[in-house]
Amino acid sequence: MSGNTFGKLFTVTTFGESHGPALGAIVDGCPPGLPLSEADLQRDLDRRRPGTSRHTTQRREPDRVKILSGVFEGVTTGTSIGLLIENTDQRSKDYSNIKDQFRPAHADYSYHHKYGIRDYRGGGRSSARETAMRVAAGAIAKQYLATQGISVRGYMSQLGPIEIEFKSWEAVETNPFFCPDPDKVADLEAYMDQLRRDQDSVGARISVVAEGLPPGLGEPVFDRLDAELAHGLMSINAVKGVEIGAGFASVAQRGSEHRDEMTPEGFLSNHAGGVLGGISSGQPLIAHLALKPTSSITTPGRSIDVHGEPVEVVTKGRHDPCVGIRATPIAEAMMALTLMDHLLRHRAQNLEVSVATPVLR
Amino acid sequence: MSGNTFGKLFTVTTFGESHGPALGAIVDGCPPGLPLSEADLQRDLDRRRPGTSRHTTQRREPDRVKILSGVFEGVTTGTSIGLLIENTDQRSKDYSNIKDQFRPAHADYSYHHKYGIRDYRGGGRSSARETAMRVAAGAIAKQYLATQGISVRGYMSQLGPIEIEFKSWEAVETNPFFCPDPDKVADLEAYMDQLRRDQDSVGARISVVAEGLPPGLGEPVFDRLDAELAHGLMSINAVKGVEIGAGFASVAQRGSEHRDEMTPEGFLSNHAGGVLGGISSGQPLIAHLALKPTSSITTPGRSIDVHGEPVEVVTKGRHDPCVGIRATPIAEAMMALTLMDHLLRHRAQNLEVSVATPVLR
Amino acid sequence: MSGNTFGKLFTVTTFGESHGPALGAIVDGCPPGLPLSEADLQRDLDRRRPGTSRHTTQRREPDRVKILSGVFEGVTTGTSIGLLIENTDQRSKDYSNIKDQFRPAHADYSYHHKYGIRDYRGGGRSSARETAMRVAAGAIAKQYLATQGISVRGYMSQLGPIEIEFKSWEAVETNPFFCPDPDKVADLEAYMDQLRRDQDSVGARISVVAEGLPPGLGEPVFDRLDAELAHGLMSINAVKGVEIGAGFASVAQRGSEHRDEMTPEGFLSNHAGGVLGGISSGQPLIAHLALKPTSSITTPGRSIDVHGEPVEVVTKGRHDPCVGIRATPIAEAMMALTLMDHLLRHRAQNLEVSVATPVLR
Amino acid sequence: MSGNTFGKLFTVTTFGESHGPALGAIVDGCPPGLPLSEADLQRDLDRRRPGTSRHTTQRREPDRVKILSGVFEGVTTGTSIGLLIENTDQRSKDYSNIKDQFRPAHADYSYHHKYGIRDYRGGGRSSARETAMRVAAGAIAKQYLATQGISVRGYMSQLGPIEIEFKSWEAVETNPFFCPDPDKVADLEAYMDQLRRDQDSVGARISVVAEGLPPGLGEPVFDRLDAELAHGLMSINAVKGVEIGAGFASVAQRGSEHRDEMTPEGFLSNHAGGVLGGISSGQPLIAHLALKPTSSITTPGRSIDVHGEPVEVVTKGRHDPCVGIRATPIAEAMMALTLMDHLLRHRAQNLEVSVATPVLR
Repeated sequence: MSGNTFGKLFTVTTFGESHGPALGAIVDGCPPGLPLSEADLQRDLDRRRPGTSRHTTQRREPDRVKILSGVFEGVTTGTSIGLLIENTDQRSKDYSNIKDQFRPAHADYSYHHKYGIRDYRGGGRSSARETAMRVAAGAIAKQYLATQGISVRGYMSQLGPIEIEFKSWEAVETNPFFCPDPDKVADLEAYMDQLRRDQDSVGARISVVAEGLPPGLGEPVFDRLDAELAHGLMSINAVKGVEIGAGFASVAQRGSEHRDEMTPEGFLSNHAGGVLGGISSGQPLIAHLALKPTSSITTPGRSIDVHGEPVEVVTKGRHDPCVGIRATPIAEAMMALTLMDHLLRHRAQNLEVSVATPVLR
Repeated sequence: MSGNTFGKLFTVTTFGESHGPALGAIVDGCPPGLPLSEADLQRDLDRRRPGTSRHTTQRREPDRVKILSGVFEGVTTGTSIGLLIENTDQRSKDYSNIKDQFRPAHADYSYHHKYGIRDYRGGGRSSARETAMRVAAGAIAKQYLATQGISVRGYMSQLGPIEIEFKSWEAVETNPFFCPDPDKVADLEAYMDQLRRDQDSVGARISVVAEGLPPGLGEPVFDRLDAELAHGLMSINAVKGVEIGAGFASVAQRGSEHRDEMTPEGFLSNHAGGVLGGISSGQPLIAHLALKPTSSITTPGRSIDVHGEPVEVVTKGRHDPCVGIRATPIAEAMMALTLMDHLLRHRAQNLEVSVATPVLR
Repeated sequence: MSGNTFGKLFTVTTFGESHGPALGAIVDGCPPGLPLSEADLQRDLDRRRPGTSRHTTQRREPDRVKILSGVFEGVTTGTSIGLLIENTDQRSKDYSNIKDQFRPAHADYSYHHKYGIRDYRGGGRSSARETAMRVAAGAIAKQYLATQGISVRGYMSQLGPIEIEFKSWEAVETNPFFCPDPDKVADLEAYMDQLRRDQDSVGARISVVAEGLPPGLGEPVFDRLDAELAHGLMSINAVKGVEIGAGFASVAQRGSEHRDEMTPEGFLSNHAGGVLGGISSGQPLIAHLALKPTSSITTPGRSIDVHGEPVEVVTKGRHDPCVGIRATPIAEAMMALTLMDHLLRHRAQNLEVSVATPVLR
Repeated sequence: MSGNTFGKLFTVTTFGESHGPALGAIVDGCPPGLPLSEADLQRDLDRRRPGTSRHTTQRREPDRVKILSGVFEGVTTGTSIGLLIENTDQRSKDYSNIKDQFRPAHADYSYHHKYGIRDYRGGGRSSARETAMRVAAGAIAKQYLATQGISVRGYMSQLGPIEIEFKSWEAVETNPFFCPDPDKVADLEAYMDQLRRDQDSVGARISVVAEGLPPGLGEPVFDRLDAELAHGLMSINAVKGVEIGAGFASVAQRGSEHRDEMTPEGFLSNHAGGVLGGISSGQPLIAHLALKPTSSITTPGRSIDVHGEPVEVVTKGRHDPCVGIRATPIAEAMMALTLMDHLLRHRAQNLEVSVATPVLR
């Protein structure tokens, strides 16, 4: 129980169901003196918001966030920050048909067996709608990290079978896919249009990068920066895999190839993805995540109901045919939250040491 | 700071450096009444122990574990369990040459910048020698899980370029690689022999499977079973990637293919890897991890010293040419610890509900 | 930082300032299946509510609580419960006179030095208004404990110099002081009326008792039931002392007197206050707390301002002349939260042991 | 479960039974660069050590502590510190007579009902012998705090009926009672000699003071400095009450008397005991604790055995007739650990604010 909190010093605790009256979060541990407004949070919420293109769910939620505490005269006070988003488009439709069914690949089956009861309206707590509060909280972390020269940005690196090369950060914000290669956008559009016609869904791969990190973030041996980042990213709905740096490609690499050699001018490569021994090296922190295809599709599937009887399930309603499309801001949020927590934990040590080496980048 | 603890209810806290007098751990939260002896822990320690074949480091450590508390008259008492392993083969060699150097791909550089001081003998705290205590603690978790009908087992699924198909659990324990295909062992031997001649190292892929799980383990939304498992596995030295079930293959899958349909007789597939919405489904829990090639190789590499001056590094000493070879028991331990923690957390709820559906397997 | 959470398995995280738009809390870890409505929380909130007699502050707050998540069709679902109370009577008065002053015995001085910034309106986060959310969360704990046959009740045992003997639980709810002796109420009324004329304030002693506890709650050695209870009670605004059972009277007791002897019929006394070795004995759990006199009085006092200049402070506004009067429901809440957390922690062990002795009461 | 850890950033986890082979602890979160040797820990261990006067137990334990990790070349490295004390005088006597008995006022009864099994030799885990590791860990905290100009010292302020006035810190270390008034020592000696003849025991009151604290330590609202201190002090064996500053005397005080007025030269009193709103004010932090009389006395007492049958219990063996006599170093340790944790937590915020007021003392 009590798994609704992320972080140790910079903590985010969330509540809210897909079709309940509101979503909310409490962000605790934000240093005082940080300028913060609702508009600062709204930016990232709008990037995650549904219904902004034809390739995502048509649910219409303004996702307007309110700051209820912890900010006074425009700056944070160091006390807990209360956040609230009211649900406005939770249509009161008839759920009697799915109430007793376990939709395949959904959390229906496992929630039912864990709790014996579940809010079946739109997935309840297991709905990805919950991630809106992660994005809001992550925006606070980003705001603070920015004051320390640290940026966190993400992009889509694969949509189904289409691999996407990183071209530029500028491109990322110019299309609904967070695609960093403007020349690939048309392919993605075509693929998604066909997918909808096929009444099917597909997975995606997202990459997230933090730059400007100091070396030294991360706590050995269990709370390594990469371990906590993997925790955060894997906790996002639909994520089935996480890589740091070279990731699974490391398996076939040789040591002479993988090791990132150093010269006085800096590291010669970054297969490590910015982490050595679980501690940031000062190089860019790089993670990749795999999102499975959306489970809610209109193609009928075999399942059972709560009585163990076979049923055929067809998921109607408004769903993202690729949950990965809106996942980039969520992945950024989880990386930002992880870094923020580790920045504070690192600071607690208040190192009064002189380190002779210039920090490499 | 204080990152040396894993778990929330079943916690493991460790200490110890590669070349210090001893390694130790405190396991807290073990239910009372569990039969437990040092021999129960020794079994897995022996599976991880160095020097048992020519393919691993020739450091000779008996890794003899002592139980110092928490067990009385052969059973656990519910109080904290103190564990100790004395280091016996920490040779007092001359470290003056590497004292001021940052070995590429090692934690030297990041520890130096984090702490301003480090125990440079054999990597100190960042040495994989630390994982011996994980294995000892994991053996306690395994012992308890076994009483609940839950098994945790692992195997090597890839060594460098050589992919290994799962054939049988019996095969796994008959060779030094934890290779589940007896017909592949000769290939692995030959590959490793060539690798040593090349003075190089290579990565590996390990797979871990838990069977006999009840549905319902895992806490939404941040402490999902898969998220905490990813945390645990990624915290193992040299791990660069973690997958649950279909993992990165999910990216190119379609929803109609990925979703695990159900019939009254059970699930028809297990792309999910045993987790739905972060909660166990009762299917086998399956994870894969990527380990990078050992950083310590005798092929010279470019680096810098603490003064920022360029140096050429050659790592002598006794090292595993593939850290993945001994990683299987460690991965099992981290999965067992994760499951044990979630089993206790789940029990805290003491569900008094009647669930009509027969649990699928 | 991040000190706004209480509990380990049954956690309460709160936010909100005295004069902000709202107070809120997230209760995480509540078992599923518990019938719960807003009315269940309102009862205790009304007991703590200001303005219900002439002896408390005249601030008029309905303290109407909303449940925003975690309850579905009238029962808890096991997911996080979001609670919200809007502030309705936070008058927009002129704070310019106290903005730069440190009111004696208030948190102004320490908050200023901790954060460098503070919400000075009505004490901001340091206001006892924050305790409303404790009461709301505590009511959920009480509701669950009641299903297990456990009650938590409190009363005033001293007001300033007037000691109050416990007569009956019935009496407690019939007067605004939570006084258990109906014959003392007139004295209390008279004392308070004189106190207001004196423009002064006074302290109080509150006693809290839990009955129906099973033996076995509490975790050695640091998370003892009494230690965590002391933590919870001491965290209430204005509390300066906590006793368990005989408390400070134990100092002058002899062992032959203090020890609670046992017979097959039960314990012969309860100097221990229901805790042995930090673990509940099954006897009533008894705690006493000392609350200091309200700091806000209209008698002028010497202080300094943020520039270090001397000032004379006169606290106007609506204040309780004895914060202890409304403290009983808060103390009950903290005891209920502590017990709830330990009940869940204890359950995680799922003892499968047979205990021969009948449990004493 | 898992209650054997104290602290959040500076954590101490302990293990060990009275008659097991050893006691141990892991201290995690100690900043790197702190000079530390076993002798630094031994000093306080010797102050707590049994058998140094005729007024304490005659068990002969050298309590020789070993540092097994986390210190390299005489300074801490920032990694976890392993501590070990071997038990050398755990006599193998015959426990068959008390094995099935519940000694009155001991933890026998509650441990039995919690765990269904207990190490009955000398109290096992519930023995005050466990506090040796608190003292060792506390000495590390003290060592660090000293580098920040913070001292933590304690003394006995009451022994049974004999109240002791504070005269000087010098006096405290010149007698076995930690009595600050040299003129009272003879009275204490006489009282204790009579007590032994009476075959009885008695309680004590200990006071602890930290000086040199900066303002700002403590985290609202649940992790207040005084609340966490109460937690730590109440977790010491035999403690039944904790007061901060004026403590229970606050109940009868008026606000005009209790409030500590300020002038540019400083506070005019310290009824608050150094804490305002749960945050340190920079004044001395003052706490008092009540210890109950030792439960182990040779005067027979009524009890029951595990079968519910009545028995007469006479506790033989080597026991302290007043556990309070050796409690001063333990109380200091818990205050030092609490302060150390909060110092690190406070630092995590890294306030970059300018505070105009000179800090009062």
